[in-house]
Amino acid sequence: MPDPRFYAVAGPFTLAEIAEAAGAELAVGADPTRRLCDVAPLSHATAEHLSFLANLKYVDAFAACRAGACVAPAALADRAPADVAVLTSDNPYKSFALAAQLFHPVPLPEPGIHPAAVIDPAAVLGAGCRVEAGAVIDAGVRIGARCLIGANVAIGPAVEIGDDTRIGTCASLSHCLIGARVMIFPGVRIGQEGFGFAIDRSGHVKIPQLGRVLIEDDVEIGANTTIDRGSGPDTVIAQGCRIDNLVQIAHNVRIGRGSVIAAQSALAGSARVGDFVQIAGQVGVADHRSVGDGARLAGQTGVTRDIEPGATYGGTPAVPVRQWHRQSAHLARLARGKAAPE
Amino acid sequence: MPDPRFYAVAGPFTLAEIAEAAGAELAVGADPTRRLCDVAPLSHATAEHLSFLANLKYVDAFAACRAGACVAPAALADRAPADVAVLTSDNPYKSFALAAQLFHPVPLPEPGIHPAAVIDPAAVLGAGCRVEAGAVIDAGVRIGARCLIGANVAIGPAVEIGDDTRIGTCASLSHCLIGARVMIFPGVRIGQEGFGFAIDRSGHVKIPQLGRVLIEDDVEIGANTTIDRGSGPDTVIAQGCRIDNLVQIAHNVRIGRGSVIAAQSALAGSARVGDFVQIAGQVGVADHRSVGDGARLAGQTGVTRDIEPGATYGGTPAVPVRQWHRQSAHLARLARGKAAPE
Amino acid sequence: MPDPRFYAVAGPFTLAEIAEAAGAELAVGADPTRRLCDVAPLSHATAEHLSFLANLKYVDAFAACRAGACVAPAALADRAPADVAVLTSDNPYKSFALAAQLFHPVPLPEPGIHPAAVIDPAAVLGAGCRVEAGAVIDAGVRIGARCLIGANVAIGPAVEIGDDTRIGTCASLSHCLIGARVMIFPGVRIGQEGFGFAIDRSGHVKIPQLGRVLIEDDVEIGANTTIDRGSGPDTVIAQGCRIDNLVQIAHNVRIGRGSVIAAQSALAGSARVGDFVQIAGQVGVADHRSVGDGARLAGQTGVTRDIEPGATYGGTPAVPVRQWHRQSAHLARLARGKAAPE
Repeated sequence: MPDPRFYAVAGPFTLAEIAEAAGAELAVGADPTRRLCDVAPLSHATAEHLSFLANLKYVDAFAACRAGACVAPAALADRAPADVAVLTSDNPYKSFALAAQLFHPVPLPEPGIHPAAVIDPAAVLGAGCRVEAGAVIDAGVRIGARCLIGANVAIGPAVEIGDDTRIGTCASLSHCLIGARVMIFPGVRIGQEGFGFAIDRSGHVKIPQLGRVLIEDDVEIGANTTIDRGSGPDTVIAQGCRIDNLVQIAHNVRIGRGSVIAAQSALAGSARVGDFVQIAGQVGVADHRSVGDGARLAGQTGVTRDIEPGATYGGTPAVPVRQWHRQSAHLARLARGKAAPE
Repeated sequence: MPDPRFYAVAGPFTLAEIAEAAGAELAVGADPTRRLCDVAPLSHATAEHLSFLANLKYVDAFAACRAGACVAPAALADRAPADVAVLTSDNPYKSFALAAQLFHPVPLPEPGIHPAAVIDPAAVLGAGCRVEAGAVIDAGVRIGARCLIGANVAIGPAVEIGDDTRIGTCASLSHCLIGARVMIFPGVRIGQEGFGFAIDRSGHVKIPQLGRVLIEDDVEIGANTTIDRGSGPDTVIAQGCRIDNLVQIAHNVRIGRGSVIAAQSALAGSARVGDFVQIAGQVGVADHRSVGDGARLAGQTGVTRDIEPGATYGGTPAVPVRQWHRQSAHLARLARGKAAPE
Repeated sequence: MPDPRFYAVAGPFTLAEIAEAAGAELAVGADPTRRLCDVAPLSHATAEHLSFLANLKYVDAFAACRAGACVAPAALADRAPADVAVLTSDNPYKSFALAAQLFHPVPLPEPGIHPAAVIDPAAVLGAGCRVEAGAVIDAGVRIGARCLIGANVAIGPAVEIGDDTRIGTCASLSHCLIGARVMIFPGVRIGQEGFGFAIDRSGHVKIPQLGRVLIEDDVEIGANTTIDRGSGPDTVIAQGCRIDNLVQIAHNVRIGRGSVIAAQSALAGSARVGDFVQIAGQVGVADHRSVGDGARLAGQTGVTRDIEPGATYGGTPAVPVRQWHRQSAHLARLARGKAAPE
């Protein structure tokens, strides 16, 4: 169960309340007035916990679990032990996430400006903001309501931030417009100059970088990730994207809605990523390349050509993932001294 | 056009002034007294803008553009529309960069020590420095004239910094000597101990790291990049290098003049990189390996042997880039069931 | 010799004192009362320096060196010049490291709370701590004795830190329990939310991240490395691990004792790494994969299956390192037009 030094738990809640929050249905026999105290994984859940089954690998664990209730697909509800109430859902993992949010709501930031914060008189903050010690907010900055600005953050002139956005400790923001409900994690760098210059033996010549970073609503940006501002066009991260830690996003990159980018991936200058793309860790996309809507890239993929929508690629240079697996298998056979392909 | 909240524009300037700044020549028919207001890419430029043609891919866009003037190679000047003035240059991209700097000069930092900066009485700052809120400058630090020390920077004891150098917000410097006109971006870490220890099952034994980081003039270091100090020798980054975001430079690495290293690349301990080397993103160079002058490494290359001067390599383990392309093509054919090479 | 602006040197010490500190034996003829002033590499050592021979590649340099004394394997002691005293050791590099620590001890932090530090009244600090300017320490934090909290660090509520631990400048800590003698380098991010959500086209649904980061004694964490807290289980880094710069450690990862992870590697969610594993730079380990005790991974390896204890792997997808070398060699031959394997 969560360490009470770090986490509070709301509740208890009845199964009826949980089902409503989770977008799930109570299966036959589940008592809607039964109360649960928290969520837990199948392996640890006891009679006061809600758990879930989202992956067929865990059906046996589900059938043997001791949870008070479980979210599960309707087709597997009858595999639950007799004393485990079942909440059925088409998307048990999402339903479990919603139920977990019920028990662990994100509290509003406790409002207040710490006396050791440094806020330029020409900055404007909305109602209910919390600004922690050491945060530095420059002239012309506009921040919406109920924002949290963490300790030792630096926000440069004229940056704009929407309502309910949170900026993690020690992050740096400049030349950017940030939407509402955005989560910026600690150490993120947004808006610095891109890597743009004319190569010249007598001294590389900088191209002035005159664009911005636009981050739309509901985006999350992981710790120590870097996002350079555009060179003239803007760098744009559209609504609902999730970007992990230590990701590099170069100038003029555009990322569509709901895309997910795992840790240590890099999008080079002017790369385009469509909507609902899924990029695993340590992937590189070369400059000016595009990755179509709904495409997926395996870990460590190196993209040197445009990727069509809906495709799944792997390898460096990137090829369709099935081809990549065949190549890997083939190479392994060759190295074992078997020259002939199947 | 640039967002006026973030950018000011100098000018307007006459074509004669622009040509002089850009190191370009006015082509026949261009009116030297014509005034332009800003720079813009071919696709967006209007009659008050200077644009440029540097890549043959864009000749059609050049021939159809509506810019007031364009920098272009002399051989292509006649492809410009009749009402577009042409400035000819052997290096149009460099000339455009110089012209863009004319319209967008980097202003000197506005001098002043913020009252919330913390400067040890035994630190020495040159004339015209700007030190922002929350910056911490330790004893014995010496900073040249007209430097900008960003908000929440931490500079350790005895660090030296040359004239006109800028340290981005939230950066950390220790055990280093930094030249003039250096740009350190936000979140950079310079001078921490390298990763040096004797491996031992009863507890790894640290090797004291007793060197420094030397950064010569005109170097730029991207956001959240890490540069460890030497173990006894120094870690050295020579004049004019450009290093992108999230790059790792280990102890005792030496990088020659004018080299360019893109994001997320890593140089392991005691690696040597020559002059004017170009390293793309996510490249790794193993410890003690050297990369010769003028060599180029493709994205995600893994260098495990020394690379000769002027060569271009790709792949892991790195091979000459043409061989790498042949290998990739060959492997793709094999995976499609065609065993025979061409 | 070390720059006196940055480094002090203890001593001089006699050979007897050095041998004792180093766990080495004085070879026949070495004068135990001879005094040395510092350590140096073979190439630079003079009569007042201790140097070492740990790698057979350097036997010639050893035979020609001008050091006052050298640590060397007993079997090679007779290769030393006549006037060079020899200290014999089974592990000359470890012995040299210990001797170097004798000349360059890490001083205790000079105790004191800087007036520009911001410490919540409900935080508890042990005796002899140093807290530098701009450090922000939140309510409920407990810090042991003789700790160093660097400038502009941010430590969130209820974090606990053991004795003699050092937190580098501009680091962020939350939701974590840190052991004794831990070194956290500048810009490290520990304890932020992991990358956990249910993918959903109508908006990804966050899974509350309710675990902690547990860092055991004697661990070192390199600059700008990111360690996410667990989702319910904890993220655990066991005693004595050494983690380099810019490493990504996702939620629920567990790393065993004494493991070493080089720069820019990434361990995805719930990955397991055993004891005394050695992971080179830019390696990726996929989620839920395990790497057995004592295994080794070459640079840029991509681990997609479990790795057995003691094995050495390379390549993406990872294969045993010998197979990887054969594959690479085979592919190179194929690309040169020689289809038949040897």
